[in-house]
Amino acid sequence: MKEEEKCTRLDKQMAFILEADKLKQIERQTYLHDGLRKENDAEHSWHLALMALLLGEYANEKIDTLRVMAMVLIHDMVEIDAGDTYAYDKAAHKTKRERELKAAERIFSILPQDQAKYFRGLWDEFEEGETMEAKFAHSLDNVQPLMLNDASDGLSWRERGIKREQVEQRNQTTKTGSEQLWVYVEKILDENVNKGNLQ
Amino acid sequence: MKEEEKCTRLDKQMAFILEADKLKQIERQTYLHDGLRKENDAEHSWHLALMALLLGEYANEKIDTLRVMAMVLIHDMVEIDAGDTYAYDKAAHKTKRERELKAAERIFSILPQDQAKYFRGLWDEFEEGETMEAKFAHSLDNVQPLMLNDASDGLSWRERGIKREQVEQRNQTTKTGSEQLWVYVEKILDENVNKGNLQ
Repeated sequence: MKEEEKCTRLDKQMAFILEADKLKQIERQTYLHDGLRKENDAEHSWHLALMALLLGEYANEKIDTLRVMAMVLIHDMVEIDAGDTYAYDKAAHKTKRERELKAAERIFSILPQDQAKYFRGLWDEFEEGETMEAKFAHSLDNVQPLMLNDASDGLSWRERGIKREQVEQRNQTTKTGSEQLWVYVEKILDENVNKGNLQ
Repeated sequence: MKEEEKCTRLDKQMAFILEADKLKQIERQTYLHDGLRKENDAEHSWHLALMALLLGEYANEKIDTLRVMAMVLIHDMVEIDAGDTYAYDKAAHKTKRERELKAAERIFSILPQDQAKYFRGLWDEFEEGETMEAKFAHSLDNVQPLMLNDASDGLSWRERGIKREQVEQRNQTTKTGSEQLWVYVEKILDENVNKGNLQ
């Protein structure tokens, strides 16, 4: 590779890394453990990558840890343009896919072609949820807000009057990634119904 | 492994993952790209992991990407207890090592023994800066705030009257991880001296 091409390549990579900074400004609906503020997408993605590193042993089948980490680091990147769609907002979910596809086109194409393809591949894989890595990434994506909701005494559930069935419905994919994390989910749900945090 | 032991193991892992949530509340001195607020340690760590995934080709020698990602995800974890020590605060740097060692003892030992050892090993490796992975992790840890400072028109440099020599001094380790990222650093520094953002 010529020096000139190398330079252009790094410029594109740094432009993407700078663009990614905007993920720190996309607010989610989940509160931090102490309920003092909501978390953002960058924090959430960091938390999932840490979980991927620690909880891989609970995946239903053997997983490629690096692939899961890469997937969760970028799985919400499209929300820079498309925004966070609250899990229990039915209307917003109707346009979610279209908004996110358009965002994926724009954002990943900032990268050099090979890396744009790699990241788009990871994002598509996560969205499709077919591989063991994608299934396990979804388990983590479900368990992390559940853990925080439990820690904040169900703050965001109580604010919106969320029902146990709604959380259980959304967490169906947890099971396909990890039977053992599903047991954890059910325990947390039981406790929060008992505490009146979930209807 | 018996079911009972398994349960205790997951409990410890989840306790650590919940403890880690506090990293989202440790403010750094670097502003986001638009200068509207400072970033926190969790966001910073996410950004570095993303960079590890994209910029590995610029490391001076071949690196284990997963190891670099794991290292940067947890490199600031001790700041939950020890706080963020500003790069150019000489007084605070005198007690930094002691405060951080104590924090590492407490925080990593929340994990099951094998994972506590793994994370403590990664943190020690980063601190010692001897392996290629640790050197490259330091390069990223230097380049990321530089990129953000450049984007915010040198906001945190200007606020504190930082000199080019100070940034250059701190960035000495960038070179040992990546000669090519060092060239990028020098270009950014030149530009910011010309703009009056660095003295």
